[in-house]
Amino acid sequence: MHITILGGGGFLGRKLAARLATEGHALTLFDMVAPVVPFAARCLGGDVTDPVAMTAAIPPETDVVVHLAAVVSAQAEADYDLGMRVNLHGTLAVIEAARRCVKPPRVVFTSSVASFSAPVGTVMAEDARQMPLNSYGAEKAAAELLLQDASRRGMVDAVNLRLPTVIVRPGRPNKAASSFVSSVLREPLLGLETTLPVTPDFALWVASPRVVVDWLRHAAVMDTAPLGTDRGINPPGLTVTVAEMLAALTPAERALVRAEPDASVQAIVGTWPARFVDARARRLGFAPQVSLPAILAAFREDDLAATRAERGL
Amino acid sequence: MHITILGGGGFLGRKLAARLATEGHALTLFDMVAPVVPFAARCLGGDVTDPVAMTAAIPPETDVVVHLAAVVSAQAEADYDLGMRVNLHGTLAVIEAARRCVKPPRVVFTSSVASFSAPVGTVMAEDARQMPLNSYGAEKAAAELLLQDASRRGMVDAVNLRLPTVIVRPGRPNKAASSFVSSVLREPLLGLETTLPVTPDFALWVASPRVVVDWLRHAAVMDTAPLGTDRGINPPGLTVTVAEMLAALTPAERALVRAEPDASVQAIVGTWPARFVDARARRLGFAPQVSLPAILAAFREDDLAATRAERGL
Repeated sequence: MHITILGGGGFLGRKLAARLATEGHALTLFDMVAPVVPFAARCLGGDVTDPVAMTAAIPPETDVVVHLAAVVSAQAEADYDLGMRVNLHGTLAVIEAARRCVKPPRVVFTSSVASFSAPVGTVMAEDARQMPLNSYGAEKAAAELLLQDASRRGMVDAVNLRLPTVIVRPGRPNKAASSFVSSVLREPLLGLETTLPVTPDFALWVASPRVVVDWLRHAAVMDTAPLGTDRGINPPGLTVTVAEMLAALTPAERALVRAEPDASVQAIVGTWPARFVDARARRLGFAPQVSLPAILAAFREDDLAATRAERGL
Repeated sequence: MHITILGGGGFLGRKLAARLATEGHALTLFDMVAPVVPFAARCLGGDVTDPVAMTAAIPPETDVVVHLAAVVSAQAEADYDLGMRVNLHGTLAVIEAARRCVKPPRVVFTSSVASFSAPVGTVMAEDARQMPLNSYGAEKAAAELLLQDASRRGMVDAVNLRLPTVIVRPGRPNKAASSFVSSVLREPLLGLETTLPVTPDFALWVASPRVVVDWLRHAAVMDTAPLGTDRGINPPGLTVTVAEMLAALTPAERALVRAEPDASVQAIVGTWPARFVDARARRLGFAPQVSLPAILAAFREDDLAATRAERGL
């Protein structure tokens, strides 16, 4: 198949591309700067809102577009125009490019738990409204509606995945409000100290990069007929508390985590639901994130060595 | 107050403008062609997606924008690009113009029951998801999310009203799937024959133009603090069956209605919910549509003579 990954230079995009490359697909990787990868792929650099660049990225023979190019929540909050341009207008550009394809391409679109909000403890129904409390979530939820309509009209064949918080992210801590969710595991596993801004009873909805790549691949090839009109999927992530995450570490690792409550962080991530009904997603073939040990194993096997090397540890 | 009505030349826009004019507001009426009205108003013609025209329509001193300019469902279904341009990008142009105002203007935005869908008989909760089955509804629901986010950010102060089917519309039958809902009352009241494409047990969610104008005016001046994040309001419309509508006519009028079942019409309007929980809207001061006789009285008093004259009856 001809598969284009927008945001193909990012952390999830590269992992998905590596997986798809082993399966013999014709890959196009598109990002702000053309990705450099150790396998066969057409690599392009450009702006996701530039029609010329998007026509090159999504040629007429395209079967699948995996659209991971996004401005994340903290950045979209800080720069409204940038978030609107990439998260909303970038998705409209995908629809426009798809309309020029030979047949309606599958579009795998990702938003996240940050497109929802709910009081602590809420179990989200499968048809729960997206009520975002941040611009990223509003832009993504709006884009989902438009992709869903374009699917109904036969312009695209979209699957809209709302991803849990992805842990353990490789690399370094960043400024995202959710950065601690990966840091609280990754830093101790690297032998480094870290801080914990929320209380141990704090619950989160999470999945490993390995499972997310499985979901993206499944969304790219699945039969979409059973979806009907509703193109949104809350995949079977794992609900964990911070206390459970700490318990998954060794005592020595755990000693590297220092409680440092931060009301501003708790206020943001505290609006993200931690529990979702996921029977539909499982029925549709999305494999569940089974356990916290599986998340740690994925990090150890897939990303620990590279993260050590990147950080000179 | 300085009030701009986009779509000010339309049926509801003119009625609202006439009402606001009696209250001494400084009115700007904007439509594709500059409206001509028998009261003091600044009347402009232009394209709702043209930044220059919108800057003229929404000058910096604007207090309220009532945004009624829209491509209706049948037209947006037939012409995707036109619907996207007016319903989505037109609303984005309102946000951009609002950002240049001295203070964040109130934006009264209207979508409709067509932005929802549900199995027949469903009572829609106040936080029910908008799951549109038409492009109009998708564009409007997406625009609502972006107006809600712009409100959270303090760029605008939006109230998003999802209007019931408005009856009795003056004028003539049109090609809208919902045209029969007005025709089945209006045509007999004019002494004319009409057809009924759905079964008598068919339920609808309706409101008179008079009540809708009340809602628009209330949305323009209400205190929005109690809305919190959720800027969407399902106002207190009336649930009626077609049988009840027919029963509100005299026997002679009723004899002018001929059953002519049309599966395609029933398929479209059959997805629109007819029942909404509306306690929140009532608490927020939106007066309910009390009865079918009140709807008929509003038509007789407000629009019957003008409709007779317009149609040469």
